[in-house]
Amino acid sequence: MRPAELRALLRGVRRGSVSESEAARRITAAPAERLEFATLDHQRALRTGFPEVILGQGKSPAQVVGIARRLFARHGLVLATRVEPEARAALLAAFPRAEVHERARCVVLRRRATRGAGRGMVLVVCAGTADLPVAEEALVTARTMGSRAELIADVGVAGLHRLLAHHERLRGARVLVVVAGLEGALPSVVGGLVDRPLVAVPTSVGYGAHFEGLAPLLAMLNSCAAGITVVNVDNGFGAGYAAHLINSPRRT
Amino acid sequence: MRPAELRALLRGVRRGSVSESEAARRITAAPAERLEFATLDHQRALRTGFPEVILGQGKSPAQVVGIARRLFARHGLVLATRVEPEARAALLAAFPRAEVHERARCVVLRRRATRGAGRGMVLVVCAGTADLPVAEEALVTARTMGSRAELIADVGVAGLHRLLAHHERLRGARVLVVVAGLEGALPSVVGGLVDRPLVAVPTSVGYGAHFEGLAPLLAMLNSCAAGITVVNVDNGFGAGYAAHLINSPRRT
Amino acid sequence: MRPAELRALLRGVRRGSVSESEAARRITAAPAERLEFATLDHQRALRTGFPEVILGQGKSPAQVVGIARRLFARHGLVLATRVEPEARAALLAAFPRAEVHERARCVVLRRRATRGAGRGMVLVVCAGTADLPVAEEALVTARTMGSRAELIADVGVAGLHRLLAHHERLRGARVLVVVAGLEGALPSVVGGLVDRPLVAVPTSVGYGAHFEGLAPLLAMLNSCAAGITVVNVDNGFGAGYAAHLINSPRRT
Amino acid sequence: MRPAELRALLRGVRRGSVSESEAARRITAAPAERLEFATLDHQRALRTGFPEVILGQGKSPAQVVGIARRLFARHGLVLATRVEPEARAALLAAFPRAEVHERARCVVLRRRATRGAGRGMVLVVCAGTADLPVAEEALVTARTMGSRAELIADVGVAGLHRLLAHHERLRGARVLVVVAGLEGALPSVVGGLVDRPLVAVPTSVGYGAHFEGLAPLLAMLNSCAAGITVVNVDNGFGAGYAAHLINSPRRT
Amino acid sequence: MRPAELRALLRGVRRGSVSESEAARRITAAPAERLEFATLDHQRALRTGFPEVILGQGKSPAQVVGIARRLFARHGLVLATRVEPEARAALLAAFPRAEVHERARCVVLRRRATRGAGRGMVLVVCAGTADLPVAEEALVTARTMGSRAELIADVGVAGLHRLLAHHERLRGARVLVVVAGLEGALPSVVGGLVDRPLVAVPTSVGYGAHFEGLAPLLAMLNSCAAGITVVNVDNGFGAGYAAHLINSPRRT
Amino acid sequence: MRPAELRALLRGVRRGSVSESEAARRITAAPAERLEFATLDHQRALRTGFPEVILGQGKSPAQVVGIARRLFARHGLVLATRVEPEARAALLAAFPRAEVHERARCVVLRRRATRGAGRGMVLVVCAGTADLPVAEEALVTARTMGSRAELIADVGVAGLHRLLAHHERLRGARVLVVVAGLEGALPSVVGGLVDRPLVAVPTSVGYGAHFEGLAPLLAMLNSCAAGITVVNVDNGFGAGYAAHLINSPRRT
Amino acid sequence: MRPAELRALLRGVRRGSVSESEAARRITAAPAERLEFATLDHQRALRTGFPEVILGQGKSPAQVVGIARRLFARHGLVLATRVEPEARAALLAAFPRAEVHERARCVVLRRRATRGAGRGMVLVVCAGTADLPVAEEALVTARTMGSRAELIADVGVAGLHRLLAHHERLRGARVLVVVAGLEGALPSVVGGLVDRPLVAVPTSVGYGAHFEGLAPLLAMLNSCAAGITVVNVDNGFGAGYAAHLINSPRRT
Amino acid sequence: MRPAELRALLRGVRRGSVSESEAARRITAAPAERLEFATLDHQRALRTGFPEVILGQGKSPAQVVGIARRLFARHGLVLATRVEPEARAALLAAFPRAEVHERARCVVLRRRATRGAGRGMVLVVCAGTADLPVAEEALVTARTMGSRAELIADVGVAGLHRLLAHHERLRGARVLVVVAGLEGALPSVVGGLVDRPLVAVPTSVGYGAHFEGLAPLLAMLNSCAAGITVVNVDNGFGAGYAAHLINSPRRT
Repeated sequence: MRPAELRALLRGVRRGSVSESEAARRITAAPAERLEFATLDHQRALRTGFPEVILGQGKSPAQVVGIARRLFARHGLVLATRVEPEARAALLAAFPRAEVHERARCVVLRRRATRGAGRGMVLVVCAGTADLPVAEEALVTARTMGSRAELIADVGVAGLHRLLAHHERLRGARVLVVVAGLEGALPSVVGGLVDRPLVAVPTSVGYGAHFEGLAPLLAMLNSCAAGITVVNVDNGFGAGYAAHLINSPRRT
Repeated sequence: MRPAELRALLRGVRRGSVSESEAARRITAAPAERLEFATLDHQRALRTGFPEVILGQGKSPAQVVGIARRLFARHGLVLATRVEPEARAALLAAFPRAEVHERARCVVLRRRATRGAGRGMVLVVCAGTADLPVAEEALVTARTMGSRAELIADVGVAGLHRLLAHHERLRGARVLVVVAGLEGALPSVVGGLVDRPLVAVPTSVGYGAHFEGLAPLLAMLNSCAAGITVVNVDNGFGAGYAAHLINSPRRT
Repeated sequence: MRPAELRALLRGVRRGSVSESEAARRITAAPAERLEFATLDHQRALRTGFPEVILGQGKSPAQVVGIARRLFARHGLVLATRVEPEARAALLAAFPRAEVHERARCVVLRRRATRGAGRGMVLVVCAGTADLPVAEEALVTARTMGSRAELIADVGVAGLHRLLAHHERLRGARVLVVVAGLEGALPSVVGGLVDRPLVAVPTSVGYGAHFEGLAPLLAMLNSCAAGITVVNVDNGFGAGYAAHLINSPRRT
Repeated sequence: MRPAELRALLRGVRRGSVSESEAARRITAAPAERLEFATLDHQRALRTGFPEVILGQGKSPAQVVGIARRLFARHGLVLATRVEPEARAALLAAFPRAEVHERARCVVLRRRATRGAGRGMVLVVCAGTADLPVAEEALVTARTMGSRAELIADVGVAGLHRLLAHHERLRGARVLVVVAGLEGALPSVVGGLVDRPLVAVPTSVGYGAHFEGLAPLLAMLNSCAAGITVVNVDNGFGAGYAAHLINSPRRT
Repeated sequence: MRPAELRALLRGVRRGSVSESEAARRITAAPAERLEFATLDHQRALRTGFPEVILGQGKSPAQVVGIARRLFARHGLVLATRVEPEARAALLAAFPRAEVHERARCVVLRRRATRGAGRGMVLVVCAGTADLPVAEEALVTARTMGSRAELIADVGVAGLHRLLAHHERLRGARVLVVVAGLEGALPSVVGGLVDRPLVAVPTSVGYGAHFEGLAPLLAMLNSCAAGITVVNVDNGFGAGYAAHLINSPRRT
Repeated sequence: MRPAELRALLRGVRRGSVSESEAARRITAAPAERLEFATLDHQRALRTGFPEVILGQGKSPAQVVGIARRLFARHGLVLATRVEPEARAALLAAFPRAEVHERARCVVLRRRATRGAGRGMVLVVCAGTADLPVAEEALVTARTMGSRAELIADVGVAGLHRLLAHHERLRGARVLVVVAGLEGALPSVVGGLVDRPLVAVPTSVGYGAHFEGLAPLLAMLNSCAAGITVVNVDNGFGAGYAAHLINSPRRT
Repeated sequence: MRPAELRALLRGVRRGSVSESEAARRITAAPAERLEFATLDHQRALRTGFPEVILGQGKSPAQVVGIARRLFARHGLVLATRVEPEARAALLAAFPRAEVHERARCVVLRRRATRGAGRGMVLVVCAGTADLPVAEEALVTARTMGSRAELIADVGVAGLHRLLAHHERLRGARVLVVVAGLEGALPSVVGGLVDRPLVAVPTSVGYGAHFEGLAPLLAMLNSCAAGITVVNVDNGFGAGYAAHLINSPRRT
Repeated sequence: MRPAELRALLRGVRRGSVSESEAARRITAAPAERLEFATLDHQRALRTGFPEVILGQGKSPAQVVGIARRLFARHGLVLATRVEPEARAALLAAFPRAEVHERARCVVLRRRATRGAGRGMVLVVCAGTADLPVAEEALVTARTMGSRAELIADVGVAGLHRLLAHHERLRGARVLVVVAGLEGALPSVVGGLVDRPLVAVPTSVGYGAHFEGLAPLLAMLNSCAAGITVVNVDNGFGAGYAAHLINSPRRT
């Protein structure tokens, strides 16, 4: 029940054109959530500048473009992830100014630059070059939502000096996203160097007893470094999204 | 907001003692679900005579008795499952007329006999004697909820003649609950003999590559007999509950 | 032993042309099931209008058409599921009036409209658009068997308001089929809103630690809402079949 | 050390041209197994008429033909399993009289008919049509080794009457091979009808929580019918081989 | 329908006291399996001298004794496996002449010596001393059923010479039962030395990535030696039972 | 090399008592991390007031007390988790003013009240009463580190109205910790209601196909609500720690 | 055939008292391995001073002492691992000079000090204090076999500085054994610091999604540092044994 | 900080142009690892002649060639593994003198012959022909690093005589790499014949309950032969690398 409808109903009660019983029945029957939740969703979009994301996987190019048109018209900002080459081409044809992030498999449409909702730095750290697509998905997601975000690549634990060389940057971040395949040890090492929130992302990079990401997933869940939280295998989007939420200033 | 409160508010609107704006604010602010869902829960208890179940596992005897007292005072009917011996004794001390189902590990408290909400027959079928506790949990649950329910025990697939001897009873049931451990083949065989809804319950009875119920669970999920649905390992309660819902007559 | 054969034998006994011993031997030796079970199968087809289903997966177009011809000649009603595009084309060539349900991958052949064997409503509820093929397989199955059936799509748990908006329809159904991939939480939420039988269908929609449907399968088996039963991953057919059985009126 | 070499050495000892120490050293150093095991292998080929099998999977057509030529020249009898179409064509080109078993994916080369080494019957029983390739691999294997072998197809547990119609044949076999996918319940049911050795073969026919044969494999390992033994998923060859060994008469 | 009943019915037909229709109805209605399967079971007991086994696990001493009394009265031969110490004591009290096999956890009751139904040798081979309880369960089972059976213990693959020293005995057996924990390699090695049927039994002896028998179970299912079949983890009974069936002479 | 040592060395260089070569050698040889990392650790303790946690599990009471004494002397603040009853008693004997959180199995020692390092609210939400120990471990951890933290208990998804009644509190939090066993659906539902960082904690509360927390763990990793991150099963400490880090204000 | 027997036989050949045929037959028939493998085993004991180890787990105190007596009499050096307290007491009673390693659960009996067969250093590195029993089992094993061996404890990856402080010792070792539970990241980090053989040992220290050592086992198998090899969960003995073999000088 | 920089700084201290405080600050701030670890990496390359390996899997031909150029320019020795045909062609175009190991999928570039850093023999032993690619990857890796290395192929455990024929070569090796798919029993058998370090490599050769290498991986981890260590499934490179490290002479 829209606020206007409710007020009209109450007006009817006052005027006697609607009985109390009838009014009570209609108010009770109204799906309350229509008032509350629609508002919620609306507020969310305004606040995060990020109302909904298109998961390209398993959608036809036409479907992706169709959803993108609708979201763009309403919000002026669209993020599509896991976009296959054909859907990417279709989006570019429909939105010639679309930003294409090829390795991250993401496409971003925006009417104007995103506001810097998060003022801290989201730092994405990545173990191997094969993990880059996932890392960049996190990077693009956090930036599209409005966070400042940077990437440190190729700093695996078997060559600690490469990681330690970035010690200052690690400690300067507000929140870290650490992406690793194989044994997934990087979040534990980084987590021991900083006292910031750290979102760990296992990747499916590996073979054999890796079980397509199970090995680093279990490693990250069992990390000896406190304060690490984990997302699904290859879920760079989820990590970037969580990092942005962490990075967002408190509402007053 | 209780119905009485809402009506009082509307009365205030009519009388002018409450402004439309204020009434709209209070109605909108009221957690809508308080109206709707509390009602729902209430209706559920009235209709099924079965508002909530006490899962005895992991609760102290004092906790079990405490919850039982509260539920009994309100509904006059309580089912407690997985009741350990100490909690069972405590319940008997508190409710000397409690029905104790030892093998099923259930205790039932009731002020008066349950109405026969379900007029069809719930037939519980059980492969081995070791599966009896789970089968009887299903039986007690269905009966407590108001269904007629019977048990056929020890009719494993390796001795088909024992099962086939009950062919008429199988076909006369409104819904079947079939309980089996080991390889869990019984639901497939029974499902091929009848065209009634069949709820399959895998049990943890077995050893080695049984993995505490995984083997029959997978078997039942992959049954070649159409129309079989499955509940969790050893979940006799869930199967009895589902069977009663299936058995309940349609509301008009 | 066909009834006619048995009667002839008994006539021989009466006339003395067959000794009692010989008759006893032949009756005992006859595979009893030939009498009983063939009848059973026949009765099943008559009653449900639904004697056997063609699982298209792994069958050549020629095989699918061949089986369909035989079943259609006998029963006038055929349901084929998981029909690949080539087999679908072959069926359409052979049965120009076949109903093709593309997204559900089903083809239905029928001589006349199915009788409304189930008078309640089978309501299929679906979390995400990617789950639609499974949901529609359930829908087509239930309808082909003779149930009234409807679909509510795209009501995931992360946007509760979309689900709650359908509250009345949920409560009006005789039986619900709830289809969900990812974390498979939807059956728990729906199960808490209604007191009707609910068949949950996990789908393989997801990635990473989803393990092709294992995640929602385990979730549904462990649901905190009582009365939920589960079928195999992506088994829309099984859920629709079970829902129709639940929905069918009791025989008198 | 070849027998001829040993005799020459001993002759040297007798003649004094080789010292006892030197002879002892050379005998001890000689890989003893060369004497013993080569003989063993030779005896095995003579006795079973079946010295070695070509697993076609993962071999090039040229490799398959090359191995087949060598084995055929020596033994006059060759069985190749899991032969891909190209390798099958190459074998037919090289051995125009090769027996091709298309569905079983087997090719047999033989100089003369196999002797009936096993006088009992190997009966292969198969649940669904999709299990036929595995069942026929078992059938071809047992027959090629010299057993009489027959096949009963499409007797799933959900239609017991089809199975029970074959009761006499089941009980007349010396050894049974029972092949089933989905929930793998058939061996339990057959095992309850006969008291003969039964080799169960799970197949990868299924989907979802079937895990490519894990479900029926676990079911068969946990069968409630005593005396059932199991081979790997889809391993029709292994089952046929084991059945032939069981079927072979005792050496005196 | 008992044979006597059937004959009485047929007599009624002949005499005219029962109409053909009535007789046909009663014969058809009679659960056919009562005739056939009861006979089957009876024949099985006569032939194998081994109608049913008591699985002691999970039964109270009173239950074990009760079942044993009934079986002994009827068959004069009882095998109880996995008998816990208390049940063992109870059996000894009830049957002072019971044979107790402590390490195998078996108790055998017999009125007279078992007939030597199997004339070949069942040879049980065992990798480590910790596998002995399972090996001896197989041994006791095969012997109780009537086979000659012997045991070779402690011949692990890491000390091949111990195994090879028994080469002649291995080749002299009619059927082998090979029991191994840890990596479960023994059946492959033994299977390469003999061309006899071989039943492999994985045991739960091991730790860590052994997963309580999963490691040797998988190894045995994947054995490179043809003709090996496998039973469940620790299932010495099943292996001994299967070995006896294999060892039993063909009926004529 | 301690700062004082370095300065002394440099003084020696200036004075000429140490050659440049010797100084370069000693500086290079010094484990650089001694300078840097010790500092780091020290800063961490100062900043978070939370240098190290005692995991009580698997430690003797004497060990727990010994470590507690050392940490308390240095930092004046100690958190011990998973403290068994005996160790709890030992801690109370040694530190009579210790705060004991019985259900959370935590003990806190502090010299003075923790500074409110995090000014937002950490809200811990808990599905069932059996999940309370894990939820309270998160609560105690966040509070001991210096965050304001509150608990909402018993708001499972099968009774949505109980959860929705707390809608305002959910949206007022800076970060949420959502604890659930069984199917682990609560984080998805809560995550759809708020746009704040959410740390999900699966618990081992369940049975059967729950696999001691695997079911809710997978569910949470596959949540359809964006921005959810996950910790190990039953890891309330890790969730509380991460929540506090998220809640801590940005350093300038 | 013992060497003396062979020589006697050859003498017979020379003298003519044994024909060449007869000698050839007897030599061929003799299990060759009796000559060869017994020698092998003997040489192994002499060379490594370490012929066999007593795995205490699952053995009675009497069995442990009995085996120890036999091995000690023959070799003068015995290692018993996983010795339960009662067996430890029994060993001490029988061998008052036994070395007891309580935390490692090992007992060593030796007549004289082990020769320093390996001249390099075996360095055992251990992540957490809870991993110490496994680390010390490796240490005791390597030392008992004759290697020099040392231990560095409590150097987890979340506190890199503690590990890096031991950099020189790490690089000075001939072979490293790295023991870790939880996420098992330590071998990767150590493996990146040194270019020596590294044996990784996962431990069962952890909870939840650790699956009793599976998490670190998978991590170690997928390590990004080359040259790491892995042993079973908690298998300190195996790691120490392998390290000693690696450390042993090459025979000339 | 480069050594030259440090010396310049110290010179400034001596001359008074840099204060002690400033020098201390700059020394402390310098990433220590830059001094130490860069040196380490350099030393590693010099010593092993093997600084880094190109994992071809998942890299484009251009990437592979680009990395190869850089490594070759610096080290004059490059090993690329898992090189796909296109990348192999690109490498051959860029480096016409590249050594291509087709079956091992490796390409080696070298300016001059590798020094024989390891003087012992690395012996690679391989169970089946399908395991050859993995075995040869180990062979090429060990040789490229500077070890002598040889291969024994096709010596599965089901034909022991083939393995035993190589007994002398097995015992003559300094370190063994044993490669096996299917049940993975070969390392246990070889490990019982020699007392040398043995690296076991499971392969993904198999089907069904092999789970792509899980079966032999578990078998090898549970081997009854002491001293066996294991690498990931199909990781021939890792095994060859570890074998070379073991084979390398001790530095003095």
